[in-house]
Amino acid sequence: MQRPFTFINCAMSLDGKISTKQRHQVKISGHDDFMRMDSLRSGSDAIMVGIGTVLADDPSLTVKSKILRDERVEKGFEETPVRIIVDSLARTPLTSDIFKKGQGQIIIATSRSAPSFRVQALQEKATIITAGEKKVDLQKLALKLHDMGIKRLMVEGGATLNWGLISKDLVDEIYTFIGNMVIGGTGAPTPVDGAGFNQDELKSFRLESAEIMDAGIVLRWSAERK
Amino acid sequence: MQRPFTFINCAMSLDGKISTKQRHQVKISGHDDFMRMDSLRSGSDAIMVGIGTVLADDPSLTVKSKILRDERVEKGFEETPVRIIVDSLARTPLTSDIFKKGQGQIIIATSRSAPSFRVQALQEKATIITAGEKKVDLQKLALKLHDMGIKRLMVEGGATLNWGLISKDLVDEIYTFIGNMVIGGTGAPTPVDGAGFNQDELKSFRLESAEIMDAGIVLRWSAERK
Ligand SMILES: NC(=O)c1ccc[n+]([C@@H]2O[C@H](COP(=O)([O-])OP(=O)(O)OC[C@H]3O[C@@H](n4cnc5c(N)ncnc54)[C@H](OP(=O)(O)O)[C@@H]3O)[C@@H](O)[C@H]2O)c1
Ligand SMILES: NC(=O)c1ccc[n+]([C@@H]2O[C@H](COP(=O)([O-])OP(=O)(O)OC[C@H]3O[C@@H](n4cnc5c(N)ncnc54)[C@H](OP(=O)(O)O)[C@@H]3O)[C@@H](O)[C@H]2O)c1
Repeated sequence: MQRPFTFINCAMSLDGKISTKQRHQVKISGHDDFMRMDSLRSGSDAIMVGIGTVLADDPSLTVKSKILRDERVEKGFEETPVRIIVDSLARTPLTSDIFKKGQGQIIIATSRSAPSFRVQALQEKATIITAGEKKVDLQKLALKLHDMGIKRLMVEGGATLNWGLISKDLVDEIYTFIGNMVIGGTGAPTPVDGAGFNQDELKSFRLESAEIMDAGIVLRWSAERK
Repeated sequence: MQRPFTFINCAMSLDGKISTKQRHQVKISGHDDFMRMDSLRSGSDAIMVGIGTVLADDPSLTVKSKILRDERVEKGFEETPVRIIVDSLARTPLTSDIFKKGQGQIIIATSRSAPSFRVQALQEKATIITAGEKKVDLQKLALKLHDMGIKRLMVEGGATLNWGLISKDLVDEIYTFIGNMVIGGTGAPTPVDGAGFNQDELKSFRLESAEIMDAGIVLRWSAERK
């Protein structure tokens, strides 16, 4: 299947949580990891998040460094990579930060179950891609994104979208920054939630690098190809 | 407070899970990590687990290496460190592996709510310590263990007991082995579950070391003292 090279970047506490049980965003990493993330963004054709993350954190997904933005422009790209929200029912608020900050294309990936009045409202602010009946069909979406010229895709969570992609074998690499705190909590989101694998289905990765950063460490894992 | 030096050892997947959503044990680490764990066991005065782990995994908690066992005996210790189950209602099955394998003292820590017939049955196989009304009072337990001469305590989970100890500031160090697989699953146990901290309560640790091992990495974190 023709699809973008896809990697997940996430920050988790030392006990594997990406936010508190109330889904409150917490500062897990620091300045250096922030710069690392910004440069990963800047080097990607597109950045993807799930609607859960938009509703919880309202991220703008822009490249923060002026130097990196200028570099993109010099190379003939938009300042901001294409930003993609996976949002089956077109629930993305029209007031989201993503519409207020940065330039460049915004894509809302919806399913055929999205109410048309919401799709129409969003159409004024974003490109709508429809894939799947009830949930966004991530395989079809990946194919369409590839056809649109997106060769390098960065995924910034959250837990449920990461599961959707990994369980469909659509992920090539995972970066996890591990921060120096315990968050705890039975319901707190982790890097990969969703249905989860059974004992005999676990997905294997390979540890490519480990780098001490801020008060934690960044690991890079690559998918083991079968 | 006089209490044992207490450290947690756990193995998690790269996405922060210590077993599958069905609480099925999975092989997360490998031979070298196994040896590391065995040597941590052997160097401890006692090893503690929660009743959830006993019911899920039925571990014997013995030192596996004959060399390490012999070393303990030469130093005048029992082959097996004291084994402790935190079990408010005395639900530990009489057929548990912990009673079948290894020698040395076994302690069941219960609360005053434990039915006396179960406590009596367990009394034939273990030392009973009562601390707390409904749940085991971990602070009182730590004090009693210290009084009994336990100066170095290894905790082998699970998720709920780890939370109980960390939330009461009873943990000095945490070792996490991070394995090369994704497990996923919203309900799958993580190193620290339980109630979880709020945004402004997070417990800080310090990264003391990171060592590549088997197909993963072991991190050692020490509690930041206030
Ligand atoms: N620390 C970090 O690195 C980091 C990064 C990002 C997010 N977070 C945290 O993660 C939490 C949000 O995660 P989340 O799991 O709630 O939301 P999410 O993964 O951002 O979004 C999940 C939603 O995407 C939609 N979706 C559509 N098709 C899908 C498919 N095929 N597979 C999977 N999802 C699909 C679903 O909603 P519909 O059915 O409505 O489409 C689903 O509920 C927040 O607490 C946030 O703070 C942390
Ligand atoms: N990968 C690893 O390193 C690793 C290690 C160990 C376990 N595990 C996994 O962890 C899972 C089991 O974890 P779990 O969370 O279910 O069980 P757990 O932490 O082993 O035991 C929790 C139980 O301890 C008892 N307890 C009594 N007083 C307590 C207190 N003050 N604070 C906390 N707990 C107290 C409670 O039961 P009562 O109220 O009945 O007393 C509680 O439900 C299994 O899936 C197992 O495979 C993985």
